[in-house]
Amino acid sequence: MEVSNKQVLLKDYVVGFPKETDMILSSGIISLKAPEGSEAIVVKNLYLSCDPYMRSCLGKPDKFSYAPSFTPGTPIIGYGVAKVVDSNHPNFKEGDLVWGITGWEEYSLITRANTFRKIEHTDVPLSYYTGILGMTGMTAYAGFHEVCSPKKGETVFISAASGAVGQLVGQFAKLMGCYVVGSAGSKEKVDLLKNKFGFDDAFNYKEEHDLDAALRRYFPEGIDIYFENVGGKMLDAVLLNMKVNGRISVCGMISQYNLEKKEAVHNLFCLVSKQIRIEGFLIAKFFHLYPMFLDYVIPFIKEGKIAYVEDIAEGLDQAPGALIGLFNGRNVGKQVVVIARE
Amino acid sequence: MEVSNKQVLLKDYVVGFPKETDMILSSGIISLKAPEGSEAIVVKNLYLSCDPYMRSCLGKPDKFSYAPSFTPGTPIIGYGVAKVVDSNHPNFKEGDLVWGITGWEEYSLITRANTFRKIEHTDVPLSYYTGILGMTGMTAYAGFHEVCSPKKGETVFISAASGAVGQLVGQFAKLMGCYVVGSAGSKEKVDLLKNKFGFDDAFNYKEEHDLDAALRRYFPEGIDIYFENVGGKMLDAVLLNMKVNGRISVCGMISQYNLEKKEAVHNLFCLVSKQIRIEGFLIAKFFHLYPMFLDYVIPFIKEGKIAYVEDIAEGLDQAPGALIGLFNGRNVGKQVVVIARE
Repeated sequence: MEVSNKQVLLKDYVVGFPKETDMILSSGIISLKAPEGSEAIVVKNLYLSCDPYMRSCLGKPDKFSYAPSFTPGTPIIGYGVAKVVDSNHPNFKEGDLVWGITGWEEYSLITRANTFRKIEHTDVPLSYYTGILGMTGMTAYAGFHEVCSPKKGETVFISAASGAVGQLVGQFAKLMGCYVVGSAGSKEKVDLLKNKFGFDDAFNYKEEHDLDAALRRYFPEGIDIYFENVGGKMLDAVLLNMKVNGRISVCGMISQYNLEKKEAVHNLFCLVSKQIRIEGFLIAKFFHLYPMFLDYVIPFIKEGKIAYVEDIAEGLDQAPGALIGLFNGRNVGKQVVVIARE
Repeated sequence: MEVSNKQVLLKDYVVGFPKETDMILSSGIISLKAPEGSEAIVVKNLYLSCDPYMRSCLGKPDKFSYAPSFTPGTPIIGYGVAKVVDSNHPNFKEGDLVWGITGWEEYSLITRANTFRKIEHTDVPLSYYTGILGMTGMTAYAGFHEVCSPKKGETVFISAASGAVGQLVGQFAKLMGCYVVGSAGSKEKVDLLKNKFGFDDAFNYKEEHDLDAALRRYFPEGIDIYFENVGGKMLDAVLLNMKVNGRISVCGMISQYNLEKKEAVHNLFCLVSKQIRIEGFLIAKFFHLYPMFLDYVIPFIKEGKIAYVEDIAEGLDQAPGALIGLFNGRNVGKQVVVIARE
């Protein structure tokens, strides 16, 4: 019952901008039988998710991290879709499709099987459970609907808008009747925002020397809601352009993750005069909304009312490059790695 | 019915740190009769309030200001306690004691009399309506109870803690069973916090080279609530010391008001991992709570359960110096100017 198991291991804690060579491909041996007396399951990994939060797991343990650091010499860990090959856990049986936190390897022994969710709806692409139907979708949904308190007709700005979360926030905002503008880092992404995701407008932040002026152009009356994915200079410019009683939901600050010394923000004085609320959130506290979220989003997917773009890397060999690509903006849409399709 | 009227005028818009010479003492003539056909009142000003927000009114009109700029050549405007000497307004009659936004002069013609409130409780010092029983008290009450969602046993940090608002926030927090530490800028103020206002602890921020280390010393388990009055370096240090689900109520950022280029804040990345909420507020939206607030606070004052310290300047001549003193930390407690006691 033992098979060889290709893996992607963290070489050592990463400082500064991560490189592909910070990870190494390796091969181990794994038993396909869940240990007797455990409540573990063994899964075959199908799709892996690459997410910006994983940058903080690549670094040394730090009390300000979102999630525990990876352990050098062991596989990278992240959200994934998998198939159960053996189960000692009452909730799962062989052949079940599941999603949860798994290893970057062909097969994983999952000891905390209760953190996995069984996939009930299989008439949508399975890879969607790494994104729109998984943590990413929940992040977009709760970060917008629960944290931003949006109202119909409000103006919404989204940074990193073509990314896995941003593309969904924009579409959720359009579905409730908001005016939505996004920023992204290439012409291709800007086109996607306008033509595929139905944003009212979009711009390439790399082509704007004055972000404040750009925002004034797109929001002459100001911004009600900012969905923050990047931090730094963009946040500073947004603060100048928020409306009174504006809300900023801080999902992440990807522009800052690889900086030892974080960029300065100077415009927080706007918080008082404009009575702005800024709120950072992690998705863990909203997962009780997951069943409701599926009921909301699956019909939109089936009716083609929500578009969803994935950037698929084929095979574990491509996984290190796919993860690094998130931080230099190479990916277009949700970055997924396929290990196997069934 | 015309009398001479001593006034404090703004000389010109102020840039950088304000000086006494930015204001001039002058004398005008005023009629003590409210104009026929108007709903105006004429008041004799008794006590004037000096408040940090007034710094922004001294500058050029600016879309980020809290309040409209003063007009050069005309009197400074601010909260005050006054006595009605003539009234064409149905709510007021001669002899009524009132508080509201008035001029820095002996007598004022108030055309927007409906913005004034009649003083019903006169068994407390009248000057208190420039502070604990006026805008200042409401700011402390709503900024703490409404914006911070405090719970018994939580840890609360207050900057500029011996100031008009800070001293009250600390006492409101103690009354509900929080652990309260304040920072201030002199030994005298720190002693006041510990011995007069009943803070659990207090420190002089000017004697701390490392604010982060200081906060770790006073809050080894972290800060649940930060009542922000200063901004800049203190906010940056606080962000590192907030607990998960911490709340920051931004009442003001006095350390920043006189800077052309605002100080940098680098630690906003903490917002996500700690799921922190920061909220700026202006008191205007909470004034509907004023009657409830009086019912809450007046018994505490009468029973001696809330201490309140005023720094009284005698006479209009002292008013420019009293206002400037707020920005170099000269005042101890609420800064008031007395023009007349009745």
